[in-house]
Amino acid sequence: MQTLIWKNLTEQQRKAALTRPVISASLNIQQAVEAIREDVLTNGDDALLALSEKFDKVKLDSLVVSKAQIQAASERLSAELKQAIQNAKRNITAFHEAQKPQTVDIETQAGVRCQVVTRPINRVGLYIPGGSAPLFSTVLMLAIPANIAGCKKVVLCSPPPIADEILYTANLCGVETIYQVGGAQAIVAMAYGTQTVAKVDKIFGPGNSFVTEAKRQVSQSVNGAAIDMQAGPSEVLVLADENADPDFVASDLLSQAEHGADSQVILVTPSETLAKQTALAIERQLALLPRKETATKALEHSRIFIAESLEQAVEISNEYAPEHLVVQVENARALLDQLDNAGSIFLGAYSPESMGDYASGTNHVLPTYGYTRTTSSLGLADFSKRMTVQELTPQGFKALAPTVELMASAEQLEAHKQAVSIRLQKLK
Amino acid sequence: MQTLIWKNLTEQQRKAALTRPVISASLNIQQAVEAIREDVLTNGDDALLALSEKFDKVKLDSLVVSKAQIQAASERLSAELKQAIQNAKRNITAFHEAQKPQTVDIETQAGVRCQVVTRPINRVGLYIPGGSAPLFSTVLMLAIPANIAGCKKVVLCSPPPIADEILYTANLCGVETIYQVGGAQAIVAMAYGTQTVAKVDKIFGPGNSFVTEAKRQVSQSVNGAAIDMQAGPSEVLVLADENADPDFVASDLLSQAEHGADSQVILVTPSETLAKQTALAIERQLALLPRKETATKALEHSRIFIAESLEQAVEISNEYAPEHLVVQVENARALLDQLDNAGSIFLGAYSPESMGDYASGTNHVLPTYGYTRTTSSLGLADFSKRMTVQELTPQGFKALAPTVELMASAEQLEAHKQAVSIRLQKLK
Ligand SMILES: [Zn+2]
Ligand SMILES: [Zn+2]
Repeated sequence: MQTLIWKNLTEQQRKAALTRPVISASLNIQQAVEAIREDVLTNGDDALLALSEKFDKVKLDSLVVSKAQIQAASERLSAELKQAIQNAKRNITAFHEAQKPQTVDIETQAGVRCQVVTRPINRVGLYIPGGSAPLFSTVLMLAIPANIAGCKKVVLCSPPPIADEILYTANLCGVETIYQVGGAQAIVAMAYGTQTVAKVDKIFGPGNSFVTEAKRQVSQSVNGAAIDMQAGPSEVLVLADENADPDFVASDLLSQAEHGADSQVILVTPSETLAKQTALAIERQLALLPRKETATKALEHSRIFIAESLEQAVEISNEYAPEHLVVQVENARALLDQLDNAGSIFLGAYSPESMGDYASGTNHVLPTYGYTRTTSSLGLADFSKRMTVQELTPQGFKALAPTVELMASAEQLEAHKQAVSIRLQKLK
Repeated sequence: MQTLIWKNLTEQQRKAALTRPVISASLNIQQAVEAIREDVLTNGDDALLALSEKFDKVKLDSLVVSKAQIQAASERLSAELKQAIQNAKRNITAFHEAQKPQTVDIETQAGVRCQVVTRPINRVGLYIPGGSAPLFSTVLMLAIPANIAGCKKVVLCSPPPIADEILYTANLCGVETIYQVGGAQAIVAMAYGTQTVAKVDKIFGPGNSFVTEAKRQVSQSVNGAAIDMQAGPSEVLVLADENADPDFVASDLLSQAEHGADSQVILVTPSETLAKQTALAIERQLALLPRKETATKALEHSRIFIAESLEQAVEISNEYAPEHLVVQVENARALLDQLDNAGSIFLGAYSPESMGDYASGTNHVLPTYGYTRTTSSLGLADFSKRMTVQELTPQGFKALAPTVELMASAEQLEAHKQAVSIRLQKLK
């Protein structure tokens, strides 16, 4: 890890040190995804079956996972893991239940009633990547809020063969249908629908560069589907002072580093001692990790910033705008009001990122890439939409009419004014 | 207006009848905007001044509107209009104040505290189009929630010369700086910043196809800015029964039609009589409108659907997913629970769209183009972002640790497990 002393950097060097690498889908990927899209739009299920054979090397009898398969998966899992998943579900449910929106229903003036009405997005599609590690925790993070929001249709796609943990968790969280199809073709299928795959209104979940590009393409298409958020590599920024335990700090940095070679891992501290001790602790812990190679690559472009003060450390964090912000300073909570632009904040020595990744109750789907400046952590609101409602009594209408007539006239929208005048006449 | 009897349509004809025309920026516009973007990124203020001279035919001394100009504008406006704007401001403020988020702060299990913390987006840019009609009502709709949310920097761009109404309203609503620059160049300037124009985090507001394309481009760029929502032509769907007043219905349809030749105007009713009477009323009222030509064009592609029942009429509306939904049926409120996928709903005979456009209190910036299925009406939330926070006590951590260790292991993320194990050891 590179160590940089913040006060020695020029404005430009500071900016460069906090800049993320530019990531955009290569033209190759764009075109490959476009071809897959055409194929699925034209050939529907047949395309999905053929692409699964090509990319996943699996010849499928059915795109839909059967009840029997789900039952068998559940029976193969250990009771301990199922209990752990249920514990996590309980906490995630509690936190997302608490996000149910308040009622907004007021008279802005006598006889003018205005409301916000929140409704579930009707049909949502969840995508879970395949690969050696089954990301069943993401199933919890997507399916639980979808169900609490009241989405009428919740379906899930994942490349075959789908891990037992994913099948068990999806079923536990009320996913209606599980399709064993992955990649860009799964995204296209959910966005437009096929004979078998249900069309959805919004697609959630992580994926590789093909999946990300497919999500981008369908979200830009009028008949496609909305998506949860723009994706980038995962990130952590640890803010620590001299009271932090270097072993804890190192373990949090490594948790992030093992996610992928492109993970962004940053330590900001006013303590040079802590910085040095953490670097040593990383060496020690790294040696024991199965994903040592991945983590080593991520650490190559990771940085330690030595700040002049805790205040400056906070400024650096707010400027970087990290996905995960781990705060290991004395009285971390006292710092909360100053912290901004973070996806999820982990306060104190016993709140490692792992807790939020799995089971504290917060959602682990978070904006990356600096989008925390403007984008919210995934929550119940993302599975809902807000409509406004207004209802005026004849008296309320009469009182507000002159205001609207004047304003419509000033904007030269005479028909808007007429819609008021014509009603006023009938009220006389 | 074309009248279609719903029950006589095939599934495919129904779908076609509710489909919006595909709108995408031509390659010409894309390339023109890319050129403007390059120019502004390279030449900053000089590019803005040159482009204003080229497109707006105005040679500017300064990009910033002076306090004296704002003062003079205010003095030129009538007291009545200023009072009307203040009335609207009061209602819009009341409704957006009521949207302040509730506190979410719970223990998901003993010693595991989870919170949602809402923070303002720090810097926002508002765009107001120019042209003969000064859209000062949109200034209210953007600047008021920005201020209630607590955005630290609120700036506004509009092409020169800026109408008095816009200057007055922006100043009234606490906009910090008004730049007299418009078009794609204004969007690029706010997204990246120039010597004079402040860089912002998110850009709000309507505009022509160049502005829309510029918003799309900067929102796809990592160093650019977020945007409020994807834009499409404005729409109204009026749901009316035999009790509705055809004059009222006609006036609401015409209000929408005068917005632009591409406006979508739809009437759905179970009453053939009302349909006929409304068509006649439209003829009568249309003749008197200054924007008759625009409205006529919009009406050419507008549709009346005769439904078999009110229930079917509601289904058609939910399927179309209109921006504005005007409900003129007996006991409109009783229908609310069945209405879905609308930006803003206007209940009853005395709640014309004009009221919400200007002064009832609801926001008139709404999703169009069917995006109401997944996107919310503009509100306080769009000027804020939600971060989650978790804090575990050592006891809370200890209780949840085995769950997280098991799950991390099952996902083959050993460093995530280690971050837990290493802390458990210190607690022993
Ligand atoms: Zn993680
Ligand atoms: Zn209007």
